[in-house]
Amino acid sequence: MKVSELAARLGGSVEGDDVEIVACAGLEEARAGDLSFCKDHRHVQLVAGTKASAVLLPKDWTHGAPCTIVRVDDPDHACMAAAELFAPPSPERAPGVHPTALVDPSVKLGEGVHIGAYTVIERGTVVGDGAVIEAQVFIGESCVIGPSAHIYPQVTLREGTRLGRGVILHCGVRLGGDGYGYTTTMEGGIPKIEKIPQLGVVEIADFVEIGSNTTIDRARIGRTYIGPHTKIDNLVQIGHNVKVAGYSGIIAQAGVAGSSQIGSGCLIWAQAGISGHIKIADGVQVGPQAGVPQSLDGSLKYAIGTPAMSMKELASITLAPKMIMKLKTEVKALKAEVEALRATGGQA
Amino acid sequence: MKVSELAARLGGSVEGDDVEIVACAGLEEARAGDLSFCKDHRHVQLVAGTKASAVLLPKDWTHGAPCTIVRVDDPDHACMAAAELFAPPSPERAPGVHPTALVDPSVKLGEGVHIGAYTVIERGTVVGDGAVIEAQVFIGESCVIGPSAHIYPQVTLREGTRLGRGVILHCGVRLGGDGYGYTTTMEGGIPKIEKIPQLGVVEIADFVEIGSNTTIDRARIGRTYIGPHTKIDNLVQIGHNVKVAGYSGIIAQAGVAGSSQIGSGCLIWAQAGISGHIKIADGVQVGPQAGVPQSLDGSLKYAIGTPAMSMKELASITLAPKMIMKLKTEVKALKAEVEALRATGGQA
Amino acid sequence: MKVSELAARLGGSVEGDDVEIVACAGLEEARAGDLSFCKDHRHVQLVAGTKASAVLLPKDWTHGAPCTIVRVDDPDHACMAAAELFAPPSPERAPGVHPTALVDPSVKLGEGVHIGAYTVIERGTVVGDGAVIEAQVFIGESCVIGPSAHIYPQVTLREGTRLGRGVILHCGVRLGGDGYGYTTTMEGGIPKIEKIPQLGVVEIADFVEIGSNTTIDRARIGRTYIGPHTKIDNLVQIGHNVKVAGYSGIIAQAGVAGSSQIGSGCLIWAQAGISGHIKIADGVQVGPQAGVPQSLDGSLKYAIGTPAMSMKELASITLAPKMIMKLKTEVKALKAEVEALRATGGQA
Repeated sequence: MKVSELAARLGGSVEGDDVEIVACAGLEEARAGDLSFCKDHRHVQLVAGTKASAVLLPKDWTHGAPCTIVRVDDPDHACMAAAELFAPPSPERAPGVHPTALVDPSVKLGEGVHIGAYTVIERGTVVGDGAVIEAQVFIGESCVIGPSAHIYPQVTLREGTRLGRGVILHCGVRLGGDGYGYTTTMEGGIPKIEKIPQLGVVEIADFVEIGSNTTIDRARIGRTYIGPHTKIDNLVQIGHNVKVAGYSGIIAQAGVAGSSQIGSGCLIWAQAGISGHIKIADGVQVGPQAGVPQSLDGSLKYAIGTPAMSMKELASITLAPKMIMKLKTEVKALKAEVEALRATGGQA
Repeated sequence: MKVSELAARLGGSVEGDDVEIVACAGLEEARAGDLSFCKDHRHVQLVAGTKASAVLLPKDWTHGAPCTIVRVDDPDHACMAAAELFAPPSPERAPGVHPTALVDPSVKLGEGVHIGAYTVIERGTVVGDGAVIEAQVFIGESCVIGPSAHIYPQVTLREGTRLGRGVILHCGVRLGGDGYGYTTTMEGGIPKIEKIPQLGVVEIADFVEIGSNTTIDRARIGRTYIGPHTKIDNLVQIGHNVKVAGYSGIIAQAGVAGSSQIGSGCLIWAQAGISGHIKIADGVQVGPQAGVPQSLDGSLKYAIGTPAMSMKELASITLAPKMIMKLKTEVKALKAEVEALRATGGQA
Repeated sequence: MKVSELAARLGGSVEGDDVEIVACAGLEEARAGDLSFCKDHRHVQLVAGTKASAVLLPKDWTHGAPCTIVRVDDPDHACMAAAELFAPPSPERAPGVHPTALVDPSVKLGEGVHIGAYTVIERGTVVGDGAVIEAQVFIGESCVIGPSAHIYPQVTLREGTRLGRGVILHCGVRLGGDGYGYTTTMEGGIPKIEKIPQLGVVEIADFVEIGSNTTIDRARIGRTYIGPHTKIDNLVQIGHNVKVAGYSGIIAQAGVAGSSQIGSGCLIWAQAGISGHIKIADGVQVGPQAGVPQSLDGSLKYAIGTPAMSMKELASITLAPKMIMKLKTEVKALKAEVEALRATGGQA
């Protein structure tokens, strides 16, 4: 699209060549053919260095740009509007069951459901109105898929999994795998390891979103539960019988071990680990890579490090070597003084 | 099921309303319709706060409950029995090959094998008696699937992978991917990165279980080997040429880098990392999030922290700031005393 | 294959029984039927303890071996040659579209393309010459697959993903999932969480290789970009709008949060975490399990620990307890001396 046409759509005015624009990108990642944007006068250097072919700038921008300028009222907003024009088309998932989908005759399908190619849905499952189940998905027996849920390709739901309204599952999500549970006994000096039956299910409440390749295990007994509006990122591990109260966030590669409870409005940052059988109080944040071996009652609002502690405590550990060096110097000076005192009989 | 019917099956006696029970759950996660259980008199508060509709309690329980009580001899055991009644039906995987499965004519299938929909098995593979291979699985050429193995949907086995008897692979397991190996040389100032051929295979011994989305790479030469009865959790990474002796456990999101050897009866806890080309002696445990840069010869039975050390050493690092504060106070006091001594010529 | 035949192919001479060889393996992992190798005279013990049936040794080896010996000029090279003989056959992926593959009529297929069973390719996608797309792959609308790309089974590419020439994607790779982005506002005391549209794409440059079950999210706006010749291991997470300049390595289970930039020739070791919106300068290495909260400008070439620091700094933290103990002893001695001075009026 010519930048002049784009500017007309965005309500902006063009200064410079009427270049062809094919995509939107940030100032630093932009390249020829891209439209970028800047609203902040402090980012003059980034604008000066951009490789974009055109840049959306505020009307009062006086610093110039190395490419075509499009002046608009709100560069942020205009860029979002432009990005929607260039975004890859959101694929149409029209109601209907693909002829290659294998849906057991006992499955109850709501109105306007889309079921993609090579998807398998086993007996007794119920799919709510408007749900989209894309290609190559596996849904086991007796599952419940809430209305308007969206399941991307190659997700697996083991038997008995329940999804609420508007749940989004990205590619490769695994719900309902057996939890990790074994008993070990010794028989004549040889360990005998037996699997503990994992008899429960996974239940995902309304408006939860779960990122690619995340795994959530079925309960040993009862339910592994993810509360409403909780958003889980990619490659997260949730053990059996975990309970998340809702409105929480769990960022990529974090893990929550079996039977732990995460409160409401919590934020578990990337690569953090929560031990089993503990509770994280409402609203607590666990920092990136933190390891939480014990319950957090909420007196600490942000826990960081391993074992998880306050930012101040963590900083004091990091600073310890410097403090030790200072102490060493002081002790050395004291030693010299004491030596001098002893030599002189206390007469300085 | 009415609680009266349930009690009859479990050999218990009912006190209270004959409520409808639909599932089992722990005291804290239970909600209306659930049966819970408690055998420990110390958990009076949890019983008092439960939202279960009925609770299994020991015959001598005198603390009451906010719901229907079912008295039984052994609440733990009774709850497991009840859980089996309410568990989602274990899907039947009857012997037979689904008509949409693509099994190369050269594949040898044992007796009573189940092969699910849209599964692909390439030439030369051998499948043992009673193996269950569920839907949408990919098994490459010349693999061996042991008798009674159970492969859940959407697992991939690259060519040459070997599974022993009774191996369980959960959804999304990836066996036999190329190991990470490259050579880098400079040619006229430009790096030239070449892939090292990964010519080996993955071999999984009898009764190993591997969790969802775990990845195990094929050897560069020879075999990446997981010994018998080893249990691996979800999202674990095992590099090329790793060898695990058997009867070990590797918990979620842990990683073992290439060519390392894990002994027998080891336990690698969640998110721990084992460097490449090292050995972990039999029976050693590596704590959660620990990083192990060097071999552990068994003199340390439980290694924790990064680099891995004893619990005592790790505690001393965590305590360092407090000890420094104490030393600071002492040094300050000493300084004052020395100053006083100097001023007074040693006369206190 | 008889070891005599093998030796003939490798140009070696046999000493000992003409055993049957079925595979190659390292000295320690080898077992009956294996050929192993050793070129280094320091590894006499490993040779003496090997369970291989035959071992490749240099011509001047004088320490013997517990099995058949094959003397060759270069044991390393000979073993690689032997390994190729025993490697599982590289499956043939002949040009052609499997009859069960669902390729939209609008898809443009280059010359000699292989498309496997049950693969789905949606409209508007372009596949370059010689590309291999194996079984059960999902490729969304308007993707570009570069020439000679190799996509292993059960990979998913969401709409608009672009792959360069010779890109290799291992099983379970997820490209183009929505990035993790939400806005939270309070409405009458209740949090309202809204999804931020993720309108960009993922672009993978030439000769990138990506390991099993790794996830790379689509950009919010513009592109998440992996530069040429970058090699990514298994179970890695790359957030939206990340940019990797090229010729870098990212090892298993590492994570890079949204909008961060990794320079050229960087090496991010296993389980490391890079925070969002920061820059790692060209050639910097981030050690295993390190956590990098701030940009690294290249003055530190190897960052380790959390927060990432120099090896020296990290060592000083680990050594702190020992240094404190030493200081404690010194302070105690000083105290005693000061006490003595005070008691004696400074007369030692």
